[in-house]
Amino acid sequence: MIKVVAKKFVKQDKLDEVIKLYEELVEASRKEEGCIKYELFQDDKDSTILAVIEEWESKDALAKHNNAEHFKRIVPMIAKLVLPESTVNVYNKLI
Amino acid sequence: MIKVVAKKFVKQDKLDEVIKLYEELVEASRKEEGCIKYELFQDDKDSTILAVIEEWESKDALAKHNNAEHFKRIVPMIAKLVLPESTVNVYNKLI
Repeated sequence: MIKVVAKKFVKQDKLDEVIKLYEELVEASRKEEGCIKYELFQDDKDSTILAVIEEWESKDALAKHNNAEHFKRIVPMIAKLVLPESTVNVYNKLI
Repeated sequence: MIKVVAKKFVKQDKLDEVIKLYEELVEASRKEEGCIKYELFQDDKDSTILAVIEEWESKDALAKHNNAEHFKRIVPMIAKLVLPESTVNVYNKLI
């Protein structure tokens, strides 16, 4: 199982726009083969911090996701609306 | 459901020690009431980046966790072995 945490610092006035884009990305991604979980979260103290937390059956499934039409269309749009300190980490489970 | 992502940048020569401490913390935390998930992950590209990804039934369950003996004993020990840029985010689910 592969875990992905994409942490986004959203530009102040772009939060609704980003959430709207994520609604489409989440819905399409959940239908992909090998997608175990694909969820959007909001920081409890700072509403401009969002996190997409994903679970994939394999690296192969994640690679296909990164090549999917909806990913290649929507992710660059979101990238314009978030700050550069945003991060994406791909994790393997230890315990 | 409350999600917690604790991202730790481990000091170069302290990785084994930190993982050992997490083994105890993970085992004890999973037994707590309201703990849905409590897992340790390692970044696929940088082995010194660890993430604890937790799911709790409620804020109350998380608050009890933060007050638990094992948490108050082990977490400060880990804190000495990781870099200051380490972060902890508490999230609410949006989608």
